[in-house]
Amino acid sequence: MSHNTFGHLFRVTTWGESHGPALGCVVDGCPPGIPLEEDDIQVWMDKRKPGQNKYTTQRREPDQVRILSGVFPREEDGVQVTTGTPISLMIENTDQRSKDYGDIKSKFRPGHADYAYYAKYGIRDYRGGGRQSARETAARVAAGAIARKILTAILGDGVEIRGALVQMGPHKLTLPRADWDWSILEDNPFWCPDAATADMWAEYLDGIRKAGSSCGAAIEVQARGLPAGLGAPIYGKVDAELAQALMSINAVKAVEIGDGMDVAALTGEENADEMRMENGKPVFTANHAGGVQGGISTGQDIIARFAVKPTSSILTPRDTVDLDGQDTSVITKGRHDPCVGIRAVPVGEAMMACVLADQLLRHRAQTGRVAGLDLGR
Amino acid sequence: MSHNTFGHLFRVTTWGESHGPALGCVVDGCPPGIPLEEDDIQVWMDKRKPGQNKYTTQRREPDQVRILSGVFPREEDGVQVTTGTPISLMIENTDQRSKDYGDIKSKFRPGHADYAYYAKYGIRDYRGGGRQSARETAARVAAGAIARKILTAILGDGVEIRGALVQMGPHKLTLPRADWDWSILEDNPFWCPDAATADMWAEYLDGIRKAGSSCGAAIEVQARGLPAGLGAPIYGKVDAELAQALMSINAVKAVEIGDGMDVAALTGEENADEMRMENGKPVFTANHAGGVQGGISTGQDIIARFAVKPTSSILTPRDTVDLDGQDTSVITKGRHDPCVGIRAVPVGEAMMACVLADQLLRHRAQTGRVAGLDLGR
Amino acid sequence: MSHNTFGHLFRVTTWGESHGPALGCVVDGCPPGIPLEEDDIQVWMDKRKPGQNKYTTQRREPDQVRILSGVFPREEDGVQVTTGTPISLMIENTDQRSKDYGDIKSKFRPGHADYAYYAKYGIRDYRGGGRQSARETAARVAAGAIARKILTAILGDGVEIRGALVQMGPHKLTLPRADWDWSILEDNPFWCPDAATADMWAEYLDGIRKAGSSCGAAIEVQARGLPAGLGAPIYGKVDAELAQALMSINAVKAVEIGDGMDVAALTGEENADEMRMENGKPVFTANHAGGVQGGISTGQDIIARFAVKPTSSILTPRDTVDLDGQDTSVITKGRHDPCVGIRAVPVGEAMMACVLADQLLRHRAQTGRVAGLDLGR
Amino acid sequence: MSHNTFGHLFRVTTWGESHGPALGCVVDGCPPGIPLEEDDIQVWMDKRKPGQNKYTTQRREPDQVRILSGVFPREEDGVQVTTGTPISLMIENTDQRSKDYGDIKSKFRPGHADYAYYAKYGIRDYRGGGRQSARETAARVAAGAIARKILTAILGDGVEIRGALVQMGPHKLTLPRADWDWSILEDNPFWCPDAATADMWAEYLDGIRKAGSSCGAAIEVQARGLPAGLGAPIYGKVDAELAQALMSINAVKAVEIGDGMDVAALTGEENADEMRMENGKPVFTANHAGGVQGGISTGQDIIARFAVKPTSSILTPRDTVDLDGQDTSVITKGRHDPCVGIRAVPVGEAMMACVLADQLLRHRAQTGRVAGLDLGR
Repeated sequence: MSHNTFGHLFRVTTWGESHGPALGCVVDGCPPGIPLEEDDIQVWMDKRKPGQNKYTTQRREPDQVRILSGVFPREEDGVQVTTGTPISLMIENTDQRSKDYGDIKSKFRPGHADYAYYAKYGIRDYRGGGRQSARETAARVAAGAIARKILTAILGDGVEIRGALVQMGPHKLTLPRADWDWSILEDNPFWCPDAATADMWAEYLDGIRKAGSSCGAAIEVQARGLPAGLGAPIYGKVDAELAQALMSINAVKAVEIGDGMDVAALTGEENADEMRMENGKPVFTANHAGGVQGGISTGQDIIARFAVKPTSSILTPRDTVDLDGQDTSVITKGRHDPCVGIRAVPVGEAMMACVLADQLLRHRAQTGRVAGLDLGR
Repeated sequence: MSHNTFGHLFRVTTWGESHGPALGCVVDGCPPGIPLEEDDIQVWMDKRKPGQNKYTTQRREPDQVRILSGVFPREEDGVQVTTGTPISLMIENTDQRSKDYGDIKSKFRPGHADYAYYAKYGIRDYRGGGRQSARETAARVAAGAIARKILTAILGDGVEIRGALVQMGPHKLTLPRADWDWSILEDNPFWCPDAATADMWAEYLDGIRKAGSSCGAAIEVQARGLPAGLGAPIYGKVDAELAQALMSINAVKAVEIGDGMDVAALTGEENADEMRMENGKPVFTANHAGGVQGGISTGQDIIARFAVKPTSSILTPRDTVDLDGQDTSVITKGRHDPCVGIRAVPVGEAMMACVLADQLLRHRAQTGRVAGLDLGR
Repeated sequence: MSHNTFGHLFRVTTWGESHGPALGCVVDGCPPGIPLEEDDIQVWMDKRKPGQNKYTTQRREPDQVRILSGVFPREEDGVQVTTGTPISLMIENTDQRSKDYGDIKSKFRPGHADYAYYAKYGIRDYRGGGRQSARETAARVAAGAIARKILTAILGDGVEIRGALVQMGPHKLTLPRADWDWSILEDNPFWCPDAATADMWAEYLDGIRKAGSSCGAAIEVQARGLPAGLGAPIYGKVDAELAQALMSINAVKAVEIGDGMDVAALTGEENADEMRMENGKPVFTANHAGGVQGGISTGQDIIARFAVKPTSSILTPRDTVDLDGQDTSVITKGRHDPCVGIRAVPVGEAMMACVLADQLLRHRAQTGRVAGLDLGR
Repeated sequence: MSHNTFGHLFRVTTWGESHGPALGCVVDGCPPGIPLEEDDIQVWMDKRKPGQNKYTTQRREPDQVRILSGVFPREEDGVQVTTGTPISLMIENTDQRSKDYGDIKSKFRPGHADYAYYAKYGIRDYRGGGRQSARETAARVAAGAIARKILTAILGDGVEIRGALVQMGPHKLTLPRADWDWSILEDNPFWCPDAATADMWAEYLDGIRKAGSSCGAAIEVQARGLPAGLGAPIYGKVDAELAQALMSINAVKAVEIGDGMDVAALTGEENADEMRMENGKPVFTANHAGGVQGGISTGQDIIARFAVKPTSSILTPRDTVDLDGQDTSVITKGRHDPCVGIRAVPVGEAMMACVLADQLLRHRAQTGRVAGLDLGR
């Protein structure tokens, strides 16, 4: 990862500002011959796009993705496939509502990166946050759609990357993971796998929204159906790369793998994920490790969580300073999500998909295999 | 970060196994002209080295570091300085106690990376964990010593990287950060900034140790005296790189920046770190963000925490399987730390120093400055 | 350099096919605050664009570049400057003349990369060569324009990157370098610094063109006004990076620095570029080294040359095979340059500018300086 | 490639100075399970090592390589194999003859990188050239030995990397490539595939040596038995990476692929390597391209040449300046090769092997194949 590019073999470079003409990404290193239409990407874009219910910003962006390069119809059946050359994706910004940016031009909004960007660059596109804006994550979701395609093309349909909201404000989802109902995820506006919790969150978030306030959230993302063996120790460990990928998402302040921060309170006996043979294959009787040991996948579900801080734009004035070095205060009006963490669910999934696709290609490079080795020689 | 190298301009490549002839690292990209003796590195090695008290492994390693390249006496005063060429550091392994590895050869120890390494590589050096061993972190500490030198050479003596244990097993340090007594850190075996907590931990850990058990821990690392502006958004954010660097340390399962996982429970009002001018400079009235906004340092203290799982080697037998795909159980005898998290403190500091030195060089490259911009044009 | 990205800190990622909707690049790592308008880039695009005289392809492409991100008007004067975030550049393809690609779909054109791409990817966009097409170099020229801006912004107006054609087919420019007339470069269609040679080449190339044939060429590019000290030994030597950058241009088969292949025939006495002090500064009495010693610039002009093979599309049928593994032959009709090397001049300049801008930023990162050290302590 | 590391997946980091305690490299990303003993590496070290005949420096270095990590005996037969973790190789310097460096400390030797290193770093290890010394290439040869092992392990015994001297001073090897006698390569001190030429060179070089002079040389390296499809366009083209790798060798000033600089003089008809089917496989009737089209291997022999400038250390005094900015002159006494190009043969082979092993792994990553696609669907 460097500057605006991440990945080693499956590489994604994103560009664009919130209120510029467009944003997008270049996805490089994709294997050739994988069927890919704009619709394959659009379906994931639509999960993230704003304005879908009262809990997300009312900015209306169709977030229509265009493929500008890197695909071609194969001769045998005309199906459009990847060519192995860079795939350029572009999303035009359409709802760049004209407004007076007077205040934001010169005042640093607390919680936002305004001051940090100024201190670094001395210049920034302040319209909608410019490059700091979470709008950049649209490009990540587009890239993630391609990463999913790669995982499936190589490993088959058993691979699944999925995510859910597991905490909103102070309210954690307390239902044990085994009891989550993934089928209802799209039936509530929160990607919540428990209907009762979703109702409770709706009530809570209504209060937050009406108060012009905002709240934080936590998201869990899971990868299922992956082989043991993915990961490139020591500094390309799969969990270390997930940590970087998820922490790079706007407003994220923590990343956990498996039991996460709670491992501090465990004993060695509790922490050890024991193993048994089952139908000729090793299985684990627990997954405190979140599917990763020594930075390498064990074949269990890979489990990661991340915390998203509250949306920084709120209607209560906050003390701040301005470009002239004067004390002042600021209110950030505008169209904002009261809980930006909700829309981070598809973004977290996308980042996990990108990391795993990249690791899979690197694993295939070094070992010539895509699966882990079997036991019983 | 890739394979066994991390960093972009300040780059560290580590090598070596727990029970091989030696381990070490190559530190590349160091600015020229920085005074560097082996003693400058050794002082940090000694903080991490094993066998210093009853709470760390009784393996006795002098962990004596040798500089094999990259330094030369400058003509004016004979002081040995860096030349800007790669600095090769080597630490010979001396206490490779000969023993029977029979069990470990063929049984996968739960909680260890044995199975994952096998599934990936099909071969591993099982002596002391081979490359999986936390002994690798000695090389990180050596590299971190050089990173500290760079930070000080460029930014002056005001820069400080420091760490403390903040949780042992279920027992958190509850003293507010402002009241920590950093002067007593080396007076207890835990890098604990509170004497009473240290006593309590000692009692707890004695119990764990005598039971042949182990416990997890959490560590906080802080960087003080850094300018605003460090960080390379979007995918080279300073917090994202800290997350990867800290998560890459053996047994780490979570990384937090600032308020970490707790941000999920905050409101926007609570989360906003407000600003005021003080003596002509902007100051923050809180630091929920941990010194990073939008992936760029704000000039506040950079605060990161990470959780280390319990040492996997315990005296209670655990169910597992073996290379032949048979159910079995295993006990890991040997010399182990009951709380490996203690020795992770200097490792976490070293990784933070390396990330920040690298970011500082990249910031200087892009902007021509090492400091953030002042306000009041 | 990897896949479709090159550079370390100043990074360029290109994308697009010859006959797709557009092509472009993302330029990342640019210092902030550098004035940049589309016109600053367009002036260099116009040097490379096709259809300007009878010696270049009659494909008519305006090659109009659009800046999609990474710039913003600065507040003090409204001048549009770089923000330090990625600059996305797009060039729409307009002259995608519809035609029957029947032959080229299934036959491998000798001299082209058709077979190699098929063997690697199994699929390719055969329209106009797809990604193999030299049309990709338009994106390099756009990036090079920004690299020039960086060099000037940091080093001042004394920096100059310039190139000339020095051989067409068998006819070398024999005029000594010191006598070249750079002022006439744009007065002939060949970027030739000698009018008599240009006339001779015109006559030769007319013959080639009328015969439906093609010829090779050699280009020299020079960088003037750079400080001593640029280069990152051992594997980031400035000449090694120039070699890669120039060899990556379509149809290039050789790269020389300074005396190039001729150094094999020199003696040590002849090869040594001696030094004298002049006005308090070291000067060299010769430049066999082409301005680079040990991979580091010496402050002399950096001189590189590269050879471009003849355009592979010719009107004489050539033996080849097809996708079905059958012997056949092929003629490549279409609009082609009889000497594609001519249009490689601005491309070579652009690549040199990009390499040097990247090296300059890396040098500043490591040493804190942009100039070499003076003598006489 | 960056700083002192090259390669993407097969990565080599070298370190060490000419007269320091040791030099070496870390070879990372090697596939696991490949048999590797120190002798496998030593055999190539011995080809490069100094003091073997009167035409190479009389410095006597055993150049004994030690493997410090990354290998382990496999259980089934005890054969030592790679584990997939970093392989650290060390070569101790033994013949660091003590001497007075007075002159070289302060005078810049023309042709050497003394001045460039000073201008960049302000400090350098002047003993034997320090990091500038061609002694660094010993580490490349060691890494190349491992690269060869990888190529053979994946592709079989048909792969061969070999090199020969093709020009000494003004005397080119004129024998057509098809008539070279590779069996006599080790029978003469020049890696010359033609006995008569070797005799002529011997006479020429005796004169050079006795005059205290030196001469340049050109080397050709070839890779045989590789599949079509290796190369990662656009910026990871296999020829572009060869150009960088070979140009990074000390004293190299030019790199050619296939016909090299001579392509400038060809017509399109001459340049097109035509194809025919033979025994169900496509074959080329010529190889002007040197086995690479569009940056991808065609399955033909990959042919590269590079020119090495004369050894800069000669017995004739040369004008120069010193650290104080004073005019002076210098003679470089010592033990030097009159034609350093001779010992560059195994170095060039090693660099080619490293580039190709890296490309092979990347190709396998992206396509899941190690061979090119067959024709005749």
